[in-house]
Amino acid sequence: MADQDARSGEDKRPTEIPALRWEEPPEGPVLVLLDQTRLPAEEVELVCTDASALVEAIRSLAVRGAPLLGIAGAYGVALAAVRGFEVEEAAAALAGARPTAVNLTVGVRRAQAAHQEALARTGDTRQAAAAALAAARALHREDAEASARMAAHGLALLDELLPAGGHRVLTHCNSGSLVSGGEGTAFAVALAAHRSGRLRRLWVDETRPLLQGARLTAYEAARNDMAYTLLTDNAAGSLFAAGEVDAVLVGADRIAADGSVANKVGSYPLAVLARYHHVPFIVVAPVTTVDPDTPDGASIEVEQRPGYEVTEVTAPQVPVTGAGGGIPVAPLGTQAYNPAFDVTPPELVTAIVTEEGAVSPVTAAALAELCARSRQVTIS
Amino acid sequence: MADQDARSGEDKRPTEIPALRWEEPPEGPVLVLLDQTRLPAEEVELVCTDASALVEAIRSLAVRGAPLLGIAGAYGVALAAVRGFEVEEAAAALAGARPTAVNLTVGVRRAQAAHQEALARTGDTRQAAAAALAAARALHREDAEASARMAAHGLALLDELLPAGGHRVLTHCNSGSLVSGGEGTAFAVALAAHRSGRLRRLWVDETRPLLQGARLTAYEAARNDMAYTLLTDNAAGSLFAAGEVDAVLVGADRIAADGSVANKVGSYPLAVLARYHHVPFIVVAPVTTVDPDTPDGASIEVEQRPGYEVTEVTAPQVPVTGAGGGIPVAPLGTQAYNPAFDVTPPELVTAIVTEEGAVSPVTAAALAELCARSRQVTIS
Repeated sequence: MADQDARSGEDKRPTEIPALRWEEPPEGPVLVLLDQTRLPAEEVELVCTDASALVEAIRSLAVRGAPLLGIAGAYGVALAAVRGFEVEEAAAALAGARPTAVNLTVGVRRAQAAHQEALARTGDTRQAAAAALAAARALHREDAEASARMAAHGLALLDELLPAGGHRVLTHCNSGSLVSGGEGTAFAVALAAHRSGRLRRLWVDETRPLLQGARLTAYEAARNDMAYTLLTDNAAGSLFAAGEVDAVLVGADRIAADGSVANKVGSYPLAVLARYHHVPFIVVAPVTTVDPDTPDGASIEVEQRPGYEVTEVTAPQVPVTGAGGGIPVAPLGTQAYNPAFDVTPPELVTAIVTEEGAVSPVTAAALAELCARSRQVTIS
Repeated sequence: MADQDARSGEDKRPTEIPALRWEEPPEGPVLVLLDQTRLPAEEVELVCTDASALVEAIRSLAVRGAPLLGIAGAYGVALAAVRGFEVEEAAAALAGARPTAVNLTVGVRRAQAAHQEALARTGDTRQAAAAALAAARALHREDAEASARMAAHGLALLDELLPAGGHRVLTHCNSGSLVSGGEGTAFAVALAAHRSGRLRRLWVDETRPLLQGARLTAYEAARNDMAYTLLTDNAAGSLFAAGEVDAVLVGADRIAADGSVANKVGSYPLAVLARYHHVPFIVVAPVTTVDPDTPDGASIEVEQRPGYEVTEVTAPQVPVTGAGGGIPVAPLGTQAYNPAFDVTPPELVTAIVTEEGAVSPVTAAALAELCARSRQVTIS
């Protein structure tokens, strides 16, 4: 079950309220999440004492973002193991909580494998639980390091593509410290540009239906004192037409072997606009986002989310009235098409930036080579 | 001043609640508007007894949509004249209530010219007021007739472009009977396709920030028993990629002499997507939308609307908390870029459909020829 712990929102830096942390109070280990559905109005923490509370938090998007979901999944397996619950069952529930995010499954499997290996080797459930927790902690640490490396590679690429500097970067959804063990993916690159004095403007798509741009990216941009401007997803076209966008930076939820990128719905239209306006469209994601078992874009299963996310307006402070807890903005009975993600084909992606370096142009061979390099680094 | 008159929303057909009507109760003539900011939750009428109430209604978008604004502007001049207010002052205030919509100015000027002519000819203010009212009524009637002709021309074009039938049409914003003296522009074409059994699906963009698609187009589609599905503006790209869109139909707020089309923000990205996917992008608008004094897209003044439309969520039932009367969804102090319209260049417009016929390809010469034909028809 999950408890809530509200904090005052008074001018805390993002590093003070991490998106996720493992704690071991006297009453037993817990996974503490910053409830992202309540941002930016309130900074509320969710305390998960078992895997089913975490599954619920993943489904409700209290915790979200590809890399962070992997870390959460690994800690979820550790939590089940440490608290003496059925580990295989918890792992299956966690891995299935969201269908598109490959990192979630990868994170769950890693802690599960560590648990199984230690159990087989020692026959001791406590040692197996400790191994699962160590695997989760390693993933968490590696992700923070990967963030820093992606930010450096991404900034180098921006500087190469845009030698004039004064970068005006458009981003979609949220890809900062709220999705990561570190500072994130696409947002981390913009943040690195900001810190080096080379970010002129961060354009933030509001990202309907769940407004992760307005609620989360604007929150992170404000806390980092970045020059940012919010816009409806519809207004991005006007910015491109006015020559106000130098590059698009987005994250990814899954990258197929051919370089097709599944990311938050609305990314593909930006890729088409970017191509039409000769603006680089750059995807920033850790190597674990690349799924060699998914051959191409058509093979990516895209999660369809409930229609009420579109037909109702929800905000933390809005009183519950509709089927999804929001206020209806469309006539009752209106059917909605609500894919969570869309797929951008590799020919529209200028570059994929990972912690191992950038791939450009994006080809199956170049991605495979990058993944092989990554495995060597991990093994060595 | 404006009074409010709430009606029950129980299953009334759209024809029973017109977007606008002139009434002459014993206490004096009034212009009655269906308050579009309250739809679809409530059907509330605004009763305007003077031009300043109408200016306020235009600014708040209680009455909106290019052709309807023209009719409202003309009736506003008549209202000032009939009630004995200063007509020239009222006309100037009405014409300046929204900057981009050319029809508003055209409608105001028409009633104003009729008033001036009759006053000069007869020296009688009552006869001049009657002339202004007659001009408004004529514009209203002509607009309804123009709607019917646009629908017929538009459907013929759809059938020509898509001989296989079973049209799946994507539309943006609202362009039906709520913007018109008749059944509208782009929506009227989809409605004609529906009535003739040739509409397979109407895809309705929600149209952030003011959600005219979710609130108004879905309302009109539901009342006409059309097969429709609502989507976030972000999800249109996924529909194109899946081959689920046969044509895009949108209205226009202003068309420059070169065929550049100003319409609700988000139209231009759809035009780029349509081009990328080889799908026709069709603009439906009366000839009065063409402004020969605006040479090209760059000359179109685009209205910038308040940032709180983006940073706050508003719905008729949401309690007032933010600066714009809504609930903040972005951090306080967030700056927003909120253009009301965008401009689609003629090379991305497959056809412009007017009451005088369709222009395709869209060129300055073809548009000028069409406008000349329209003037001949009006004069003859």
